[in-house]
Amino acid sequence: MKWALNKLFFPLMFVFFALSGLAYYLHWTSGLQLAFAVAAILFTAGFLGRATESVAYYAGQRLGGFLNATFGNAAELIIAIFLIKEGLFDMVKASLTGAIIGNLLLVLGISKLAGGLKHKVQNFNSHLAGQNASLTLLAVIALAIPAIFVKTEHFPAAETMNVSLIVAGFLIAAYFGWLIYSMFTHKDLLEDHIDTHVTHGEEPQWSRGVSILFLFAATVMVAFVSEWLVHTLDVFTARFGWSELFIGAFVVAIVGNAAEHSAAVLLALKNKMGAAMEIAVGSSLQIALFVAPVLVFISLLFAEQMDLIFTTIELAAIAVAVLIANSTSRDGSSTWFEGVLLLTVYCILGVCFYFV
Amino acid sequence: MKWALNKLFFPLMFVFFALSGLAYYLHWTSGLQLAFAVAAILFTAGFLGRATESVAYYAGQRLGGFLNATFGNAAELIIAIFLIKEGLFDMVKASLTGAIIGNLLLVLGISKLAGGLKHKVQNFNSHLAGQNASLTLLAVIALAIPAIFVKTEHFPAAETMNVSLIVAGFLIAAYFGWLIYSMFTHKDLLEDHIDTHVTHGEEPQWSRGVSILFLFAATVMVAFVSEWLVHTLDVFTARFGWSELFIGAFVVAIVGNAAEHSAAVLLALKNKMGAAMEIAVGSSLQIALFVAPVLVFISLLFAEQMDLIFTTIELAAIAVAVLIANSTSRDGSSTWFEGVLLLTVYCILGVCFYFV
Amino acid sequence: MKWALNKLFFPLMFVFFALSGLAYYLHWTSGLQLAFAVAAILFTAGFLGRATESVAYYAGQRLGGFLNATFGNAAELIIAIFLIKEGLFDMVKASLTGAIIGNLLLVLGISKLAGGLKHKVQNFNSHLAGQNASLTLLAVIALAIPAIFVKTEHFPAAETMNVSLIVAGFLIAAYFGWLIYSMFTHKDLLEDHIDTHVTHGEEPQWSRGVSILFLFAATVMVAFVSEWLVHTLDVFTARFGWSELFIGAFVVAIVGNAAEHSAAVLLALKNKMGAAMEIAVGSSLQIALFVAPVLVFISLLFAEQMDLIFTTIELAAIAVAVLIANSTSRDGSSTWFEGVLLLTVYCILGVCFYFV
Repeated sequence: MKWALNKLFFPLMFVFFALSGLAYYLHWTSGLQLAFAVAAILFTAGFLGRATESVAYYAGQRLGGFLNATFGNAAELIIAIFLIKEGLFDMVKASLTGAIIGNLLLVLGISKLAGGLKHKVQNFNSHLAGQNASLTLLAVIALAIPAIFVKTEHFPAAETMNVSLIVAGFLIAAYFGWLIYSMFTHKDLLEDHIDTHVTHGEEPQWSRGVSILFLFAATVMVAFVSEWLVHTLDVFTARFGWSELFIGAFVVAIVGNAAEHSAAVLLALKNKMGAAMEIAVGSSLQIALFVAPVLVFISLLFAEQMDLIFTTIELAAIAVAVLIANSTSRDGSSTWFEGVLLLTVYCILGVCFYFV
Repeated sequence: MKWALNKLFFPLMFVFFALSGLAYYLHWTSGLQLAFAVAAILFTAGFLGRATESVAYYAGQRLGGFLNATFGNAAELIIAIFLIKEGLFDMVKASLTGAIIGNLLLVLGISKLAGGLKHKVQNFNSHLAGQNASLTLLAVIALAIPAIFVKTEHFPAAETMNVSLIVAGFLIAAYFGWLIYSMFTHKDLLEDHIDTHVTHGEEPQWSRGVSILFLFAATVMVAFVSEWLVHTLDVFTARFGWSELFIGAFVVAIVGNAAEHSAAVLLALKNKMGAAMEIAVGSSLQIALFVAPVLVFISLLFAEQMDLIFTTIELAAIAVAVLIANSTSRDGSSTWFEGVLLLTVYCILGVCFYFV
Repeated sequence: MKWALNKLFFPLMFVFFALSGLAYYLHWTSGLQLAFAVAAILFTAGFLGRATESVAYYAGQRLGGFLNATFGNAAELIIAIFLIKEGLFDMVKASLTGAIIGNLLLVLGISKLAGGLKHKVQNFNSHLAGQNASLTLLAVIALAIPAIFVKTEHFPAAETMNVSLIVAGFLIAAYFGWLIYSMFTHKDLLEDHIDTHVTHGEEPQWSRGVSILFLFAATVMVAFVSEWLVHTLDVFTARFGWSELFIGAFVVAIVGNAAEHSAAVLLALKNKMGAAMEIAVGSSLQIALFVAPVLVFISLLFAEQMDLIFTTIELAAIAVAVLIANSTSRDGSSTWFEGVLLLTVYCILGVCFYFV
């Protein structure tokens, strides 16, 4: 995130934020609206990531990890809430799917490819890789099992919603169990890893008070830009004939993961492959085990409720992303060709989603 | 199984056995029938397990392992035969499914959780874990492949039964191959493991002759109580509106696995995680590779024949149980959070089966 | 391939080649046509394998590996082209499926069984086993994902063909990436392995020029015999009532893999389990990542185009073959019982395909 330190960062962020707002409220052409919204989300997501890291520095590693987990995916969460408010459940699920496969295949794939071309073989903690593999597998199971039951046994809508809420509760509980395990009871087993992760920016630029202020400011800005972006994307759905699924799973997801993306690739180039993997895999886990279940509960506040039943092709995409990511990571070493494997699967999924 | 040594064990077992028999033959209220039958099955299953261990002590490790394998799941086998006699194939398959997922998720999950809370990290033989992973995978494949073919290619009933019988034969052959491998040709590779398993009770209480007598007595008692329990459960199926599937896969399975359950958790608390895993995983393997195929052949003796085709949701439940159990076990170490993962999957499956 | 050195090899090959040609062109009985064609394909495939190895010896390991990869599956490729020319796409896909599962289950299974009975435990490079596992998983994903999308989203034929061509392009690119990775950038990591593979015949019998001449001659002979064999098999499909699928996946595949089969088992008996695995798994990878995609492009030259969408049962067969092969291989050691596991899965698949 070195670019975030650049002196031009704040001026550019405010310019694009303002232009994006003007384009939206003054109904400029949809092309301009999209261009400015994408630029603004890239800068504000970067600002949010930087503010989160800075707060994490002061709060210490334990609380820092929790803040990273909670705020790291704020952009995705906020975008999703606006979509749920408008009843666009299919696009929410598509963007959650896209965030999961985007992190596991695109972010991790480019990190492995870039890091592997520079360093030949990069090693990381295979114990953590095994834990991540089991957690991502839990995510696949928790999404797939209710879907299989609902579809083959033809559950009515009320039962589907009940199952969704209960499973969502289990997932949030498992996620908090993971936080307790990785930050308290078995913190030492994973210590060196979390260490490189949270403090990879070394000295924060901002004081404690400024960091907290910036964290809230960034969250609010991301919230606004996200709403503008979502509206603009709706227009483009109709114009280019791109399916809602392709836009949600690939366009929205790539934009929403910009912060994770740049951070992970930079860490991989610095030969900190373990930290790069933790960002990519950890972000996927947060989406699947925390963001998605929380959205199900949040949807109770609105007129229509969103269940946790993804489509067959979304489940297939998540399942294969988890399978290939786990297969390449389980041995605790990484090479450029593993990156090629992940990117090949991402491209195959992209082509298939495009033609839906 | 320390409670089995208690002086009150035998008097209580006979009291509940007698009460259960009276309740059944004198048509007491179904609530009393169920309560006494559950109490009686818990005691008689414990008696059967204790007698099996004692016989195994005298017979030596090789034959002991075989007896453990053959008698360990006697309760499940006997319950299933009574169900097949009455043509309740769906409940048989549900209870087999429940026994497999109950052992892999509930028994193993509580063992890992309890052992992990006391001992932080518990190690076991990763070679055996790998073999168990391949064997459980074989079980999933052997159940899933014929089902996929039968359903997508619409096999007629006669062909389905032929395929079931041939596949059942292959599974029994593979199971005997595993006994030869683990008890003869590669016994030394797995020695310390089988050692802790068979002799964990140290000194048997009973002489050789008494042990053999008790083994037969226990098997007969389990057979009677099982028949009473099955009849009572039928009544409850109708009363509470619980589905046959939920009763078979969760209620019957939890009752039927009581012996494995207490033994495995006690071993995990004594930091013998390898032995605890062997009971849980080994019991699942016996059900899938021996009990289920044998039941297909036994059904040839009755009016209607049972095939080996499980429903989609049963296969999905078995497959995810195997996947998550293998994913957490492959590295040869166990922590409390892995127990949480297994129990979370068990709860998700329980909720889904409840709503069917 | 010791039998290939036998002095009777060349005379017998020419006799059976001539008899097979006469039987075909003079319309002898279909029984004779089949018998001579099978005998001729066994000899000519052996000749092709021997010529390939000899050329590989002179060309050095790097180019040798590539030639092995390109010519090793020449028989399968040529048989498939003739089938595509006649529009028999179902049989092409069945024979590709059969070649993949035949190598992963039958060839690898017999190698592990034979080698394991002689040597108790055989070790091999677990790093390469991990890479092979990820590559075979990529093959399953690349075949399954388009099929799932096409079937659940009901793609029209033109879109299906477009997706097939793009995915085929990705697979061929990934395959060339693997060649670059394993022969150039990370050759040293896999060196000892490729070494035993390419030079297992030690001194070649033929000079450089003769080797190249023989390579072309063998390819032409295999092409002719393959065409005769395919025509004869068509006749038998009708006569015995065997399904096209069973013939394609089991009969054609066993014949086509004769060369890999004998070579791998001999290497396993010599305790070169790594080389045996590489032949079996490497051959499967070539079929899935190179031969199948190339056939999709080749089909553009003919009247009807073949897509890359396999049937559900074919995909299930390939997926379980990959899962069990990876599960048994991941630990870097092999025993006879792992061979039993692979052969059991092969037999289960064989029974199911037979009853289709």
